[in-house]
Amino acid sequence: MDKRIIQEKINQAIEILNEKKIDLWLIFARESATIHDPSIDIVVGTNCTWQSAFMINRNGDTTAILGSLDVPNMEMTGTFKNVTGYVKSIKEPFLEYLNKHKPVKIAVNYSVDSNLADGLTHGMFLVLNNLLKETPFKDSLVSSEEVIAALRGRKSKTELDYMKEAVKETLLIFDMVTNFMKPGKTEKEVGAFIKRIVAEKGFELAWDEDHCPAVFTGPDTAGAHAGPTDRVIEKGHIINIDFGVKINGYCSDLQRTWYVFEDGQDTAPEEVQKGFDVLKESIRKAKAIVKPGITGCEVDDTARNYIVENGYEEYQHALGHQVGRVAHDGGVGFYPRWERYGKLPYLPIEVGQVFTIEPRLTVKDRGIVTMEEEIVVTENGCEYLSTPQEELILIK
Amino acid sequence: MDKRIIQEKINQAIEILNEKKIDLWLIFARESATIHDPSIDIVVGTNCTWQSAFMINRNGDTTAILGSLDVPNMEMTGTFKNVTGYVKSIKEPFLEYLNKHKPVKIAVNYSVDSNLADGLTHGMFLVLNNLLKETPFKDSLVSSEEVIAALRGRKSKTELDYMKEAVKETLLIFDMVTNFMKPGKTEKEVGAFIKRIVAEKGFELAWDEDHCPAVFTGPDTAGAHAGPTDRVIEKGHIINIDFGVKINGYCSDLQRTWYVFEDGQDTAPEEVQKGFDVLKESIRKAKAIVKPGITGCEVDDTARNYIVENGYEEYQHALGHQVGRVAHDGGVGFYPRWERYGKLPYLPIEVGQVFTIEPRLTVKDRGIVTMEEEIVVTENGCEYLSTPQEELILIK
Repeated sequence: MDKRIIQEKINQAIEILNEKKIDLWLIFARESATIHDPSIDIVVGTNCTWQSAFMINRNGDTTAILGSLDVPNMEMTGTFKNVTGYVKSIKEPFLEYLNKHKPVKIAVNYSVDSNLADGLTHGMFLVLNNLLKETPFKDSLVSSEEVIAALRGRKSKTELDYMKEAVKETLLIFDMVTNFMKPGKTEKEVGAFIKRIVAEKGFELAWDEDHCPAVFTGPDTAGAHAGPTDRVIEKGHIINIDFGVKINGYCSDLQRTWYVFEDGQDTAPEEVQKGFDVLKESIRKAKAIVKPGITGCEVDDTARNYIVENGYEEYQHALGHQVGRVAHDGGVGFYPRWERYGKLPYLPIEVGQVFTIEPRLTVKDRGIVTMEEEIVVTENGCEYLSTPQEELILIK
Repeated sequence: MDKRIIQEKINQAIEILNEKKIDLWLIFARESATIHDPSIDIVVGTNCTWQSAFMINRNGDTTAILGSLDVPNMEMTGTFKNVTGYVKSIKEPFLEYLNKHKPVKIAVNYSVDSNLADGLTHGMFLVLNNLLKETPFKDSLVSSEEVIAALRGRKSKTELDYMKEAVKETLLIFDMVTNFMKPGKTEKEVGAFIKRIVAEKGFELAWDEDHCPAVFTGPDTAGAHAGPTDRVIEKGHIINIDFGVKINGYCSDLQRTWYVFEDGQDTAPEEVQKGFDVLKESIRKAKAIVKPGITGCEVDDTARNYIVENGYEEYQHALGHQVGRVAHDGGVGFYPRWERYGKLPYLPIEVGQVFTIEPRLTVKDRGIVTMEEEIVVTENGCEYLSTPQEELILIK
């Protein structure tokens, strides 16, 4: 728990509430270590046991109401100005707070489209409605998705520094992996090698250890979200790895592509080089159009169309997503116009958001070419957070 | 992920669905590594990225429908018989499944009272209702709380073996702590000592590392859910520690009480001994009435009333909760008749459930006396999983 960042994000939340004309942001949770609303990491910094209300008010007040035994821990955490305990029911102190501050719009964490703004469980939604049913606040609840999208998307300088560090360390680990990989090693051995380095350096993995890293060699690999298998690296294979670390609570998410020479080769075969070049150019073209106000689907279109025009099948996923405290962060992303992304592909990109760009294509009989870069949106365009892969990495 | 236990629990879930006359249990989730429905650990064993339906049917079928990139990982996990992928929308394969199996009652994970049965977010509840709105299944959704309460509560032999091991190791660590503690050490030093042992043994902590262990010395301690402080162990203090480990995915949750002699003492002062004896007897009395069919509030009453009758303030929490894959597990517990526990205090206890018994009382100017034991409910009563504390542990 980095208290300085939490304080920055609370202050930012208050600005966002004023910008969006929302009076109160309410995080309503219980046993939050078990079913964890990710907003708690950003603006609270500890967990609660019983029904709890964490409230950030556009007037600058921050108040937490918790079961009495959770009060000392919250006070020691020190992120909220006012901490109130209750023994038998949250109702009385909670309604007292509302009657004092009289919020007209109360944002709570549910969202049809954005999982990171959807931390309120349906049972707790019913509890909350029951608490409010005979009060003037019964029709005040709105989705916090706009608040959370802005809060998670707009990275502060401290956050960007942490993210750059995670990117830098990930690229250093890719260099070590280049020296480790050779024909005869299995995907599992490569995965274990990476995990050992992560443990030695004291980092966390950026996502589930099942498939962080994901390591794929050759044709007929297990698919983008599967873990390393017993498949053996062979000459003539394309290898790709999807991997990230979490440092200071912030993630990286990058991919690189290697080619393993066959005997006598000193350059990659034409079809491998072409796949690499097309993929690289699709990233360059997508990056070139990113700027505030553009929609994610336009960015996705650019890379997707370029890959298809060059004779490859389109990738079966989005071009990119936000990165932050989790690897798949934020609301908007470089999403295709598919139903499963709801309205998110059509929302505008904002300054300060960090995205991956990660198209994919298959080179028949060789394997899958992927690169994943990270960019941050600036006033006039965007900049790489990663040093982008310019050439196939070649293994003898 | 222990596949054998997941298979046991899937089979048990099918039995429970038949017993409760529910046709289908649907776990509906997305990005489950981020907002994690705890039922996924019990019957799925891996995470999903996009909107996913994990379905256990009373006819014995198990089907998972996931974003296509998650399919290989789910197949490698191997816990569900049928795995179907989709690219653009879950709607078609999901409705196809429902039209084939025609469930009348579909249990989904929301619950007003039981947080562990409340893993469905409100946004995903809206997504689900939208998927079903023009189908015959639109009024089929019911809460899965009865299914989950039975599934988490009724421990299999393998589960009980794992829980006994976690209890045994916790008690061994308490023995090591007894030799470590002495006047002049701080709560934080004691906490760090325990965490070192846990790390060396390769165990996990049973709950948030903030306050696992919780270490309290002397009067005016920080409260039951706070972490260790810089308070120093002094002669004449009562010390108590609340601590548990997770081994093979199953938790322990135990407390013990120590007394630090003043110079010249060779027995504890009368008021300390009396506090200990009353607390111990309150546990014995509560344990004596536990059997299938009794309600949790009756068990809580027994200990609470005994403590109050002996002149102490009542404890400001429940007498006990279930333990399992998380430290605060299950639906019913030994809960007082307080609004914050909803209907749970009034539901019957069942065979196979594991509970803590953890009353608390304060000895003025000395500290807090707590013991926490674990019991498993049997056909005719209950048995300790822990070796209960019989005497104050004395420190020179």
